[in-house]
Amino acid sequence: MNSTNIELDITKAASSKIDQVDFDNLQFGKVNADHMMYCDYKDGEWQTPKIVPYGPMEFEPSAKVFHYGQAVFEGMKAFKDENDEVWLFRPDQNFERINKSSKRMAIPEFPKDYFFESLKTLLELDKDWVKKGEGNSLYLRPFVIATENGVSASESDEYRFMIITCPAQAYYNKPIKVIFAQEYSRAADGGVGYAKAAGNYGAQFYPTKLAKAKGLDQIIWTDASSHEYLEEAGTMNIFFRVGDKLLTAPTNDRILDGVTRKSIIQLAKDNGVEVVVEKVSVKEIVNAAKKGELKEIFGAGTAATVVRVDGFEYDGTYHDLPTINEPYGTFFKKALQDIQYNRVEDPHGWTMKAF
Amino acid sequence: MNSTNIELDITKAASSKIDQVDFDNLQFGKVNADHMMYCDYKDGEWQTPKIVPYGPMEFEPSAKVFHYGQAVFEGMKAFKDENDEVWLFRPDQNFERINKSSKRMAIPEFPKDYFFESLKTLLELDKDWVKKGEGNSLYLRPFVIATENGVSASESDEYRFMIITCPAQAYYNKPIKVIFAQEYSRAADGGVGYAKAAGNYGAQFYPTKLAKAKGLDQIIWTDASSHEYLEEAGTMNIFFRVGDKLLTAPTNDRILDGVTRKSIIQLAKDNGVEVVVEKVSVKEIVNAAKKGELKEIFGAGTAATVVRVDGFEYDGTYHDLPTINEPYGTFFKKALQDIQYNRVEDPHGWTMKAF
Ligand SMILES: Cc1ncc(COP(=O)(O)O)c(C=O)c1O
Ligand SMILES: Cc1ncc(COP(=O)(O)O)c(C=O)c1O
Repeated sequence: MNSTNIELDITKAASSKIDQVDFDNLQFGKVNADHMMYCDYKDGEWQTPKIVPYGPMEFEPSAKVFHYGQAVFEGMKAFKDENDEVWLFRPDQNFERINKSSKRMAIPEFPKDYFFESLKTLLELDKDWVKKGEGNSLYLRPFVIATENGVSASESDEYRFMIITCPAQAYYNKPIKVIFAQEYSRAADGGVGYAKAAGNYGAQFYPTKLAKAKGLDQIIWTDASSHEYLEEAGTMNIFFRVGDKLLTAPTNDRILDGVTRKSIIQLAKDNGVEVVVEKVSVKEIVNAAKKGELKEIFGAGTAATVVRVDGFEYDGTYHDLPTINEPYGTFFKKALQDIQYNRVEDPHGWTMKAF
Repeated sequence: MNSTNIELDITKAASSKIDQVDFDNLQFGKVNADHMMYCDYKDGEWQTPKIVPYGPMEFEPSAKVFHYGQAVFEGMKAFKDENDEVWLFRPDQNFERINKSSKRMAIPEFPKDYFFESLKTLLELDKDWVKKGEGNSLYLRPFVIATENGVSASESDEYRFMIITCPAQAYYNKPIKVIFAQEYSRAADGGVGYAKAAGNYGAQFYPTKLAKAKGLDQIIWTDASSHEYLEEAGTMNIFFRVGDKLLTAPTNDRILDGVTRKSIIQLAKDNGVEVVVEKVSVKEIVNAAKKGELKEIFGAGTAATVVRVDGFEYDGTYHDLPTINEPYGTFFKKALQDIQYNRVEDPHGWTMKAF
C-alpha cells in the first residue's frame, strides 16, 4: 500500500495472546487478534485513529447504536502466501462499500488514508495471526457505530469507526441446504438492503431460525413484493448453474453488491463460462430442477468464499441437486483462492500487499 | 402494580444529580435520571434484574449488537398528578409489544414480573424526576441488546435488557411539515416494520435528512411496493381528517401498532367521531386536499403525544392545510393527557399507579 502522512496513535499489547489460541479449532468470529483500531468522529471530524490492545470499551446505555441500529460494517480477509507475505483481496471495494453503506445510514464517510493506514498497521503488528494454509485467513471487520448519547430518533453527531480482526478457518465446511423465501423478506425497495447496515442482519435471525428448525441451513431471499425472484442469501450472493450457463441476480437497492460475486463474474468471463446477470425467477429454477437442468447452486461471499448448496426447499417440496463432475463452484473457489494466496498471476490487480 | 416475589438487586446512587438539571430546558432524551435497570440473559435464562446508578458500561467491540442490530426498544412515559402520585399509561401494551418485537428479532422474551417490578422500583427511587405540569413526564426507555461477543451472523446467546429514563417536556412544540414518501421506504412486507427493532430507525435518518434539507420535518412512509398508501411516520402513527371522518391505516407487518393510535381510535368512538381504519391512499388524500375536504393531519405517538401537521409535500407540490376551529388533534391530545395526568375518570382502565 502507499504510505501516507497520517500518524496513528499506537499502544502495543504488553504481551501476545497468540499462544492461547488453538488455530485448528477456531469458531468463526470468536477469537480476536491482539490489536484493534478505533477512530472517533466528533466536532464534525474524524480524530486520529488509535491502535490499542483488543478489549472492552465503555459506552453509555443511551448511545444511539443501541437504540437505532445506526451502524454499518464490512468483512474482508488477509491471506498469507508461502513466503510469509500478507495480502488483501480487493480492499478498495470494501473501502468504497463501507462509505456507500455509511451514506445510506447518515454516517459520515471515513477517509481513505485512515482506512488503509490502519489496516496496514494492524496487519503488520498482528502478522503472526495470519496463518498460512488453505482456508486460513485473518478476517477483518471494519465497522462504524453511532456513539452520541441520547435517545432521540435522529442521526448521531458522534461515531466510532473500528477495525477488529479474527483468525479464521473455512467458514462452512460442508454443503448447505437452503429454502427459497415465500413469507419473510430481507429488504424493501427503497430500503437499506444494498448497505451492510447492522439491522439487515439481525432481522434475518428469526426466519433463519425457523428454517434451521426444518433442517435447512440458510434462506435464499426473494424480492419482498412478489417473492418471485431469487436475490441473495444472508451473507452471500447466489449463483445458479442451468445447463452450462451461470445465472445470478443483478444488483439493485435490496442486494449487497458482493466482492466475491463480482470477482466470480469476471473469472467466469476469463474462463469462457457464459454468465447471465438477469432477474432469476423462482419458477425458472424450480422448472430447471425438475427437468434435471439445474446443475448447481452456490453461494459466494468473503466469509464463506464459495459454498455448495446441495438442495433447496420451495413450496413445501425439497429438491435435491445432483452431484456432478467438475462443478463450477469448486473451480471458482480454487481460482479465487489461487489469487488470494498469491499462488498464480493476478491479471486484474486484485491483490494488494498488506505492508 | 401488583407486588411479586422477585427480588431486585439494588445499588442506590450515592447522591442525586437532579439539582444540576434545568427542567425548563430539556433536550429530549439527553438527560438521564439517577438510576437504571439492567438484566442479563445468559445460560438460557434472565438473571436477577439490577438497579444501579445510571452510567457507562463495558462492552466488547465484538458484541453482536454493534454488528447485527439485534436490538429492540420501547418508549413509555410516567406522569405525575396534582397529588404527587406517579402514573403509567397502558404499560401492559408496551410490555407485550417489546416481547413481540423481541420474538421477531430472535431475542428471548422478558418475564412480566421482572418488567413491572423494575419499573416500579425505578420510578419509586427516581420519583422526584417525574415533574408535574402539562407536557412534563419521565420518558422510560426499555431496550434489549445482543451482548454475545463474536462476529458471526447468527442470533446472540447473551442479551442485556435495560431500562433507562429521561425527564421530558413536550417533544415537538410546533406543527410540522411532512412529505409523502415516493422513493425511500421504511419497511418491507415480511420484514420487521411492525417491531420496534433498532435498525428500522437508523434506516430512516438519511431520507429524513434529505427531507429536512427541503424544509420538511418528517416523512410519511408509504407501502414499499407501490408508494400508493400512507402508513405512518418515523415515530408516530398518522391520522387524516377528511370532512368529519378520521382515517388511519390498519396495522400490518410494516406498521408499528401504536398505543397512542389505538387509544385515539377508542377515544374517537367514545366521543362519536367516525373512524375509518382502512388503507389510506395518497390519491384520496391529495384529492381531498385539493377540494378543501382535508381538514387535518396529525401524528400520534408516546414521545410526541399528538402533533399537528400543517402541510405536506407530494410529487413536488406543497399542500397547506387549513387552520380550523376545534381540531380533532387538539381534542384528542387533551383527552389523552387528562387521562394520563389523572385529571378525569379513566373508563378503560388505561392508567396504572406506578408504585
Ligand atoms: C447480504 C450479503 N450478501 C452478500 C455478501 C457477499 O459479499 P462479499 O463477497 O463482498 O463478501 C455479504 C457479505 O459479505 C452479505 O452480507
Ligand atoms: C414507527 C413508530 N410508529 C408509531 C409509534 C407510536 O407508537 P406509540 O403510540 O405506542 O408510542 C412509534 C413509537 O413510539 C414508532 O416508533
